[in-house]
Amino acid sequence: MPDLLGDAFERIQDEVDSAFDAFLPVPQDTRARLVEAMRYAAIGGGKRVRPLLVVATAELYGVNRDAAVNAGCAIEAIHAYSLIHDDLPCMDDDELRHGKPTLHRKFDEATAVLAGDCLHALAFDILTQPDTSSDPFVRAELVATLARASGHEGMAGGQMMDIVSEQQAYDLRQITRLQQLKTGALLAASVEMGAVLGRIPPEGRTHLRAYARDIGLAFQIADDLLDVEGDETKAGKALRKDAGQGKQTFVTLMGAEQARAQAEMLVEQAGRHLAGHGEDARLLVELAQFIVRRDH
Amino acid sequence: MPDLLGDAFERIQDEVDSAFDAFLPVPQDTRARLVEAMRYAAIGGGKRVRPLLVVATAELYGVNRDAAVNAGCAIEAIHAYSLIHDDLPCMDDDELRHGKPTLHRKFDEATAVLAGDCLHALAFDILTQPDTSSDPFVRAELVATLARASGHEGMAGGQMMDIVSEQQAYDLRQITRLQQLKTGALLAASVEMGAVLGRIPPEGRTHLRAYARDIGLAFQIADDLLDVEGDETKAGKALRKDAGQGKQTFVTLMGAEQARAQAEMLVEQAGRHLAGHGEDARLLVELAQFIVRRDH
Repeated sequence: MPDLLGDAFERIQDEVDSAFDAFLPVPQDTRARLVEAMRYAAIGGGKRVRPLLVVATAELYGVNRDAAVNAGCAIEAIHAYSLIHDDLPCMDDDELRHGKPTLHRKFDEATAVLAGDCLHALAFDILTQPDTSSDPFVRAELVATLARASGHEGMAGGQMMDIVSEQQAYDLRQITRLQQLKTGALLAASVEMGAVLGRIPPEGRTHLRAYARDIGLAFQIADDLLDVEGDETKAGKALRKDAGQGKQTFVTLMGAEQARAQAEMLVEQAGRHLAGHGEDARLLVELAQFIVRRDH
Repeated sequence: MPDLLGDAFERIQDEVDSAFDAFLPVPQDTRARLVEAMRYAAIGGGKRVRPLLVVATAELYGVNRDAAVNAGCAIEAIHAYSLIHDDLPCMDDDELRHGKPTLHRKFDEATAVLAGDCLHALAFDILTQPDTSSDPFVRAELVATLARASGHEGMAGGQMMDIVSEQQAYDLRQITRLQQLKTGALLAASVEMGAVLGRIPPEGRTHLRAYARDIGLAFQIADDLLDVEGDETKAGKALRKDAGQGKQTFVTLMGAEQARAQAEMLVEQAGRHLAGHGEDARLLVELAQFIVRRDH
């Protein structure tokens, strides 16, 4: 039996790496160090869950593959910049990411701040290239979706709530809101951008948004479980950090068993939202299952 | 005699402050601190040279004023984020900005990194709002212009060259290139975006680009002169930093007198590029003169 999801991951990983390689030629001047740092962060790391979500959603609507890969790279550039900045000494002060030294450890802090900023700008640069869509309306809507999902009303807002949670005990409602922003917003944007590329109007995206909301929450519950139960070598980053920082998580609030059951329930529910697509949505359904069953 | 430039500055400062106030309502949750930090950086600080450039250029082509103010706010959001990140301890480690404590001093470093990132995203969010342009082609082109000007091929690339210049002596050609990127790219984008809003095709923007290139260089020469000769109280930030870091500047390479003459020459030349617009370009011409004659 062919490994649909495994093959899809392998293919998207290659495509994203090639695309970043083409987006980021190293200049022949003193900016070389900056671009090398961007390449260090963008190429050859990460599972590429977000680009795969874009591509798998776009496939439902027959979107050109290269266009969807470009949009996936834009989201991945945002994801990569956020990891670089989150790893900084003034934030989480992490040493390892994807099994390699974090960017500020490999280069230096100033380069890490700047490389993150440049990947942030690159994301929007990519989305406005005609290769991503020949339709300026689609390009503008992709930018709007990603800017909203990554700023203070999305990912970065969730990151701020996360920082505050070290000093303030959150309840389950607050933790859910935090995670919907910090992790969920960018996962939801990935699905949304696949639909934007497919020219599906907002009213035709309800089932996709429901799918994205469920997998976003399941993803974070799985992350919280991995933080408690995972293997640092497989994760390629430091674990057991939540407990060390005294943070509330889905696991501390619900217990590991109930958290796992909740994640499994969300994934099943996510799959049901896509039932109308039949076999066409198999990749998205398997991706949802992967999200809770992954060991890293 | 009415003070055309003084009135224009006063008006745009009010407009930009009001617009940011509207873009950034403080949320009723733990993201409040983040949005307060964004407001601290974005409201009530800076001369608003870049928004005035957008508005004055857009006026040449009869663009709706609110649309041009929005685009000006987007550039100012990028400018503000770059100042926050440049002021960080791992970068320039500055204590004062616009006469107030820098953001990481007033809040903390993690909030400063995040608030900068959020202003960065806000810039693109603003540009994709229908209020900025009802034409998605214009919105997409505004985003493309700003993303390119602010990333590794523009402002942030110049910032990296600047960091490297502390260890490596640059010649005049390299300093010119550095400044064209670090300061010039965003000033040029301001003029360019005014033309994009006016639906002027690239081939009709040659004279504007020439104007922008000249004032960009003049701006930086004036900055280098101010770093040597300026008053810290008026500047609202630390000066004499270039010499302390052993950096080459236009002043160290050309001498103060020749640098001043060069800046004056560039400003005259900038004005001549706009001769075809006659009196309509008076504000842009006066703005160019202000750029070299300002005392802060």
